[in-house]
Amino acid sequence: MQFKDIIEKKRNGEKLSRDEIEFFISGYTAGDIPDYQVSALLMAVYFQGLDREETFWLTDAMKRSGDVADLTAIPGIKVDKHSTGGVGDKTTLIVAPLCAACGVPVAKMSGRGLGFTGGTVDKMEAIPGFRTALEQTEFEGIVRTVGMSVIGQSAHIAAADKKLYALRDVTATVENIGLITSSIMSKKLASGSDAIVLDVKTGRGAFMKTQESARQLAEWMVDIGKRSGKKMAAFITDMEQPLGKGVGNSIEVMEAIDTLKGKGPEDITELSRQLAGYMIYIGGKAASHEEGVKMADRCIRDGSGLKQFRAFVQAQGGNPDITEDPSLFPQASCVLELRASGSGYVSALDAETVGKASQLSGAGRAKKEDPVDLAAGIILNKKVGDAVKPGDLLATLYANDGEKARAALQVLESAYGFSEQPPEKRPLIFDIIE
Amino acid sequence: MQFKDIIEKKRNGEKLSRDEIEFFISGYTAGDIPDYQVSALLMAVYFQGLDREETFWLTDAMKRSGDVADLTAIPGIKVDKHSTGGVGDKTTLIVAPLCAACGVPVAKMSGRGLGFTGGTVDKMEAIPGFRTALEQTEFEGIVRTVGMSVIGQSAHIAAADKKLYALRDVTATVENIGLITSSIMSKKLASGSDAIVLDVKTGRGAFMKTQESARQLAEWMVDIGKRSGKKMAAFITDMEQPLGKGVGNSIEVMEAIDTLKGKGPEDITELSRQLAGYMIYIGGKAASHEEGVKMADRCIRDGSGLKQFRAFVQAQGGNPDITEDPSLFPQASCVLELRASGSGYVSALDAETVGKASQLSGAGRAKKEDPVDLAAGIILNKKVGDAVKPGDLLATLYANDGEKARAALQVLESAYGFSEQPPEKRPLIFDIIE
Repeated sequence: MQFKDIIEKKRNGEKLSRDEIEFFISGYTAGDIPDYQVSALLMAVYFQGLDREETFWLTDAMKRSGDVADLTAIPGIKVDKHSTGGVGDKTTLIVAPLCAACGVPVAKMSGRGLGFTGGTVDKMEAIPGFRTALEQTEFEGIVRTVGMSVIGQSAHIAAADKKLYALRDVTATVENIGLITSSIMSKKLASGSDAIVLDVKTGRGAFMKTQESARQLAEWMVDIGKRSGKKMAAFITDMEQPLGKGVGNSIEVMEAIDTLKGKGPEDITELSRQLAGYMIYIGGKAASHEEGVKMADRCIRDGSGLKQFRAFVQAQGGNPDITEDPSLFPQASCVLELRASGSGYVSALDAETVGKASQLSGAGRAKKEDPVDLAAGIILNKKVGDAVKPGDLLATLYANDGEKARAALQVLESAYGFSEQPPEKRPLIFDIIE
Repeated sequence: MQFKDIIEKKRNGEKLSRDEIEFFISGYTAGDIPDYQVSALLMAVYFQGLDREETFWLTDAMKRSGDVADLTAIPGIKVDKHSTGGVGDKTTLIVAPLCAACGVPVAKMSGRGLGFTGGTVDKMEAIPGFRTALEQTEFEGIVRTVGMSVIGQSAHIAAADKKLYALRDVTATVENIGLITSSIMSKKLASGSDAIVLDVKTGRGAFMKTQESARQLAEWMVDIGKRSGKKMAAFITDMEQPLGKGVGNSIEVMEAIDTLKGKGPEDITELSRQLAGYMIYIGGKAASHEEGVKMADRCIRDGSGLKQFRAFVQAQGGNPDITEDPSLFPQASCVLELRASGSGYVSALDAETVGKASQLSGAGRAKKEDPVDLAAGIILNKKVGDAVKPGDLLATLYANDGEKARAALQVLESAYGFSEQPPEKRPLIFDIIE
């Protein structure tokens, strides 16, 4: 088999065979096929596409290109949740304890973030003592005894995806539904859970800017997951403005704790109970999504979700008292306020711009090697639909570098839009693809 | 300027600017832009195309990426001839002496061939003592005193084309009119002549299989040449069957000599007098193409073309007596005959298959490093339209390796097709684009 012939076949709009896709991924992972041939194939794929069967074969080959976790020793239906990424999305920290409290084991592998804030692993490390670099046996042990665990993603998971993504990023070949699907799903499938609930974000702060593109990605990922023998669902949810009020690392953990206490912002509470409810349902502990949501509500009301969170923190070496004493989190030395100059309503709060301000404050990484400031971030005191009058506190910015803080505040200011009339309310959840 | 943005722009179907194309070629030649980004751009170009202006900018940048010959010290309009490549095409060896004999200087840079036979440089080296590795001053001196010279193409001509072509070859991005045009024309423009007559081949043995694609390439090359200030024309000629009867290196030189003596095959004689006539016309020594052809005819009739050829051979160290004594050429140790088994007419003689047989016999290179067997090749005793009866000699194959010769003969046999009725005659010259 000659790789050039595979490029030519795809260039001509033909369907690749499973063997050809296997040859591509195994050869590229092994270093036998050079980057310059692969980037030509990727551009041909950009124009000619991959169908769902090719995407399934590609995803499967990429999954097997690195470590594949085996969680079969853990009893029950292990449920994973994955968000395509947004600003202020701390739902994992809320839904995982709610599921675990209902008997659905959550064995979560998570990466470090690149972008607006850190990833789930970074956020959890805002808790003093918390460890995410666990051995596989320790990880599985915690899931078995405590019901949930979060581990840093293996560097050897879906090895082909790492190489491919880096190449796509510099060759303008990121935007293809088959390639996007296989990149996300190869990692999810390799992390070993039995069921996966996806949260596909759409709007200004999301990778998928339109509802149509988000729906398409959701459908493709659900299809590929099912072809791989997984239970699947995908929520399509709003990311026009940030989720919740907190954006940052420790700031988001605090908001997750508030939500588990029943005192979280409305949107984050609503999305978390819906997602957790679905995970409880797909995990076989509720007869329907609706019943799962009721069970999640009960876990918030009776404190069992919070208790679960504390047990999880303790099991991974963290100080559980952070749920009662926020002063145990890293503190920012520099706090700036953004205040309203006029009267009216917040009509827009651009999630992407808030994300950029968060990153500028130090909460997110620009490069993989950059450190993350765990104390940095933003609290959005006013969100879309809120009435404001002159002098009202719009947002509070936390940082440890005064210069960065001032630059971030300027960016943050540009994220806000105002109107005389209250804006139309946008739905939080657009659809669930099953 | 980021190269990724250039890829994305072309991917989206936008026109690149002259600066962007300049950045691409100078960066790639310098090694600052990696192959894997360039191959992605090439595939984007495959799908989105380059317009004529982009192609002109690209050609110009590629021309300047290496050595550019300056022939201004040679008086007169220097005329170059370039064929897109075919089987049995020895016209350069005929038209150059005819032009020179009429006072049109020909300063020819020529490459070594890859494929069916060697290039013009290889063919000339079949003449004992002939040297093509000349210093530029010696080359120019011979053109000035003798009227014509052939020199091996500088390794540093159109440096970007060398890198780009090697990359296109392994990434299935050869077939694009803008890229093909710029590859050919960058080298032609760098070789310094004032006028260029192109011979664009079409048919089974040509790179451009259809008349439409050959016409398009001809039009593009003529346009790009004119934009660069050159006098231009392109012939569109047949390459369905080989040109002339001889295919090989010394075999083709012998046929060229026969043609200069007025004893060449009909097709090669006709194409040579038409091409030479045009070159004499475009070189300012005839008032029309027609008058140029008459002058070329006279040079054949009065022997001045042959005399010119002998002077040129002698000037470059070769033995001019080869024009009278073919035994001075390298001789093949192994001669095989292909004979007809039935009666009828030759209806087809697939140029590409004859070319493969020629290469197998040892006359052509598969890899750049391979040697060329100067004595090897084929004489086609019967061509399309010829009547045959059982036992008639169809072709004679020359080689120095018995095993290769038998394999080549089998391939050669498959090139012939027969019919009961004489086939329709195909034109030799389809059109001239000016």
